[in-house]
Amino acid sequence: MPSERINGLAAVLDAVRTHRGVTQPRLVEQVGLGRSVVAQRVAELEAAGLIEGDGLDPSSGGRAPRRLRLRSGNGVVLGVDVAVTELVVGLADLAGGILAKRQRHIDVADGPERVLATAEAVADELIATVAGDRPVWAIGVGLPGPVEFRTGLPVAPPIMPGWDGYPVRGRLAARFRAPVWVDNDVNLMALGELRSDPAAAAAGHLLYVRAGIGIGAAIVMDGRLYRGAKGSAGDIGHVAIPEGGDAVCRCGNLGCLEAAAGGLALAREGRLLAETGLSPVLAGILAESGTILPFDVTTAAEKGDRAARALLQRTSTLLGGTLATLVSFYNPDVLILGGGIVRAKAHVLATIREVIYRRALPLATRDLRIDASSVPEELSGVTGAVHLALDEVFAPGSLEDWLAAGSPSGRPPAA
Amino acid sequence: MPSERINGLAAVLDAVRTHRGVTQPRLVEQVGLGRSVVAQRVAELEAAGLIEGDGLDPSSGGRAPRRLRLRSGNGVVLGVDVAVTELVVGLADLAGGILAKRQRHIDVADGPERVLATAEAVADELIATVAGDRPVWAIGVGLPGPVEFRTGLPVAPPIMPGWDGYPVRGRLAARFRAPVWVDNDVNLMALGELRSDPAAAAAGHLLYVRAGIGIGAAIVMDGRLYRGAKGSAGDIGHVAIPEGGDAVCRCGNLGCLEAAAGGLALAREGRLLAETGLSPVLAGILAESGTILPFDVTTAAEKGDRAARALLQRTSTLLGGTLATLVSFYNPDVLILGGGIVRAKAHVLATIREVIYRRALPLATRDLRIDASSVPEELSGVTGAVHLALDEVFAPGSLEDWLAAGSPSGRPPAA
Repeated sequence: MPSERINGLAAVLDAVRTHRGVTQPRLVEQVGLGRSVVAQRVAELEAAGLIEGDGLDPSSGGRAPRRLRLRSGNGVVLGVDVAVTELVVGLADLAGGILAKRQRHIDVADGPERVLATAEAVADELIATVAGDRPVWAIGVGLPGPVEFRTGLPVAPPIMPGWDGYPVRGRLAARFRAPVWVDNDVNLMALGELRSDPAAAAAGHLLYVRAGIGIGAAIVMDGRLYRGAKGSAGDIGHVAIPEGGDAVCRCGNLGCLEAAAGGLALAREGRLLAETGLSPVLAGILAESGTILPFDVTTAAEKGDRAARALLQRTSTLLGGTLATLVSFYNPDVLILGGGIVRAKAHVLATIREVIYRRALPLATRDLRIDASSVPEELSGVTGAVHLALDEVFAPGSLEDWLAAGSPSGRPPAA
Repeated sequence: MPSERINGLAAVLDAVRTHRGVTQPRLVEQVGLGRSVVAQRVAELEAAGLIEGDGLDPSSGGRAPRRLRLRSGNGVVLGVDVAVTELVVGLADLAGGILAKRQRHIDVADGPERVLATAEAVADELIATVAGDRPVWAIGVGLPGPVEFRTGLPVAPPIMPGWDGYPVRGRLAARFRAPVWVDNDVNLMALGELRSDPAAAAAGHLLYVRAGIGIGAAIVMDGRLYRGAKGSAGDIGHVAIPEGGDAVCRCGNLGCLEAAAGGLALAREGRLLAETGLSPVLAGILAESGTILPFDVTTAAEKGDRAARALLQRTSTLLGGTLATLVSFYNPDVLILGGGIVRAKAHVLATIREVIYRRALPLATRDLRIDASSVPEELSGVTGAVHLALDEVFAPGSLEDWLAAGSPSGRPPAA
């Protein structure tokens, strides 16, 4: 049966690519297929040029078993992380190792034509200088708004004028002649976390919450991203919160989490503290730079400014309240905080933990781990975009196409 | 490999038990194993007395294919649904058909000794009068509070004094010498819905919300219950809501959903409307019966009482607000409302839908179906308890034990 054969192939390939140096005896344990089947699949994957030997393991009596690894130099993948004011493009090998990355200031509100043209130009530069003759196998893209994952289309993104329904996938696929997957940036940050932090990967049920200018969550279930019926799962920036009051959010609704606890609210409140003189440190920053950024509040708190500390505490109490609801509802093993908030973790983590432990169901918090992300903020989105591309291009369905096409070039067929 | 063999067996058995009258050619399609493997598994299951022939399908040229079915009369399963003021015990065959059920008024606050003694007495009665010589294969139990599914222990249930950590599973397993699984009652209502409503079963991601005296949710993902890290997923009765104010909940916290939108709040507000004369119909009910039950508010609304209608609308606005948050977060295909609220659906469904469509992310509500449960309220818990027992006793792990024990009695080994 072809589907079983392909599944066996995909399973063996997946085990080799995620456990570099694995041997055939260990593959038998991991994949749960028989020895002869595994040997056959390994031979097929070697013949297709997808995997190769990587030296020998010490013998445990008989013949020393051969270590295997992905031929990660067969091609490259592109990761494109579009944030609200920044674009990061990374080029990685097939094992997910970032070979080079470039950053550009953008404004996502300039619309898809301008932003994607910049991304394409940066990608061209990276390919020309780093990829050599290695073809682009796949592209992963993260956007700061809701994306229908199946089609790769942004759908009614509240802060991205011009992006609604824009064919991001079609444009980049035609430009680079490679399959493209598009996802919400928070999902990709969570994926980056999973692939970079063994403890996060080991947790069955993970909730990743990115708090910065935007607030969003990603849901990981049994080690895999859960995207929901339409791909919008985790979109919590605009839920109504008890302390939301009548503040009008940029989405048009009242009392949204983001309007009360997002980075813009933090900056606005920080500016008030500066202007009223309640925060001497923030007043100094405002006098010097003419503006207050969210990060300035953290800087002031670090310098011992009491008003700035109280503001951070209030913001984390608001965020913690919504997270307590989600912890009660979803009952994760691990809650990871990412985004701009990580820079303020010394001032916010204890408050967030305290609110969640007080407000969520005791059974849901019993062994719950709450931590800040360990992936550097500027890398997490692009790392996730690269891993999205790799996970999808090596998924059983894609692999099936690849092998059916019998491509001898070491390159999968364009989606 | 034994695990593959058992998985094949379990898959074939599962297909036969969930598709009565299935033939071997159709099993091949459904299970995704080869013809000869399926034929072998069918023979093994017949030899073990688990399945049997069920007549012949019309021939499509060759030999007419034999229909297969579970030998559902080999044994019985017990379903025990413990609600706050009511206990339902049902006895079902191995296909989940309820053979008989009995209902008793209880008070869950009387503690596990009294409540379970009542359940045992009722079960004894049912077994003596209905089971004949069929052994009890398994027992499913639903409790109105958080349950750690792995151990079957209630954990710090807010409204069940004396139940915290009580060994429900151990007690019933010893008493009936059968394996026991215990779960939150809302999870079981959702399971009952899934097994009774083909449209619900076909939805990949379902959110089932029970609103009555208690408010809780169950999460269905890819057709299976998601219970979370500890088994408490869906426990939303005590999340803080924007309109919760400073009302003290019976759980000890402030501003909980249940304290504002649960059945007790509805009855309390209804009583106020009666006492102040704002609701003539409720005033009449209070004068006659001396009390106002949640359902009385629905009755008054049905008689055209404007204050009662406004109260129901306010309650459904509060509930809808929390559901909008969960819809944004979880992005289900289908949201099913169950519990006491179903009796008021003519008055609440439109408001709940309106709040969710207005407040949740557009992408999350685009094809969302929101409906009231189609399973009669008094049956949904016990139906779910029966199906929990069946799903678990026929799961690959249990089946493995069963076959290893080589039990000739048609009875699985006690857990």
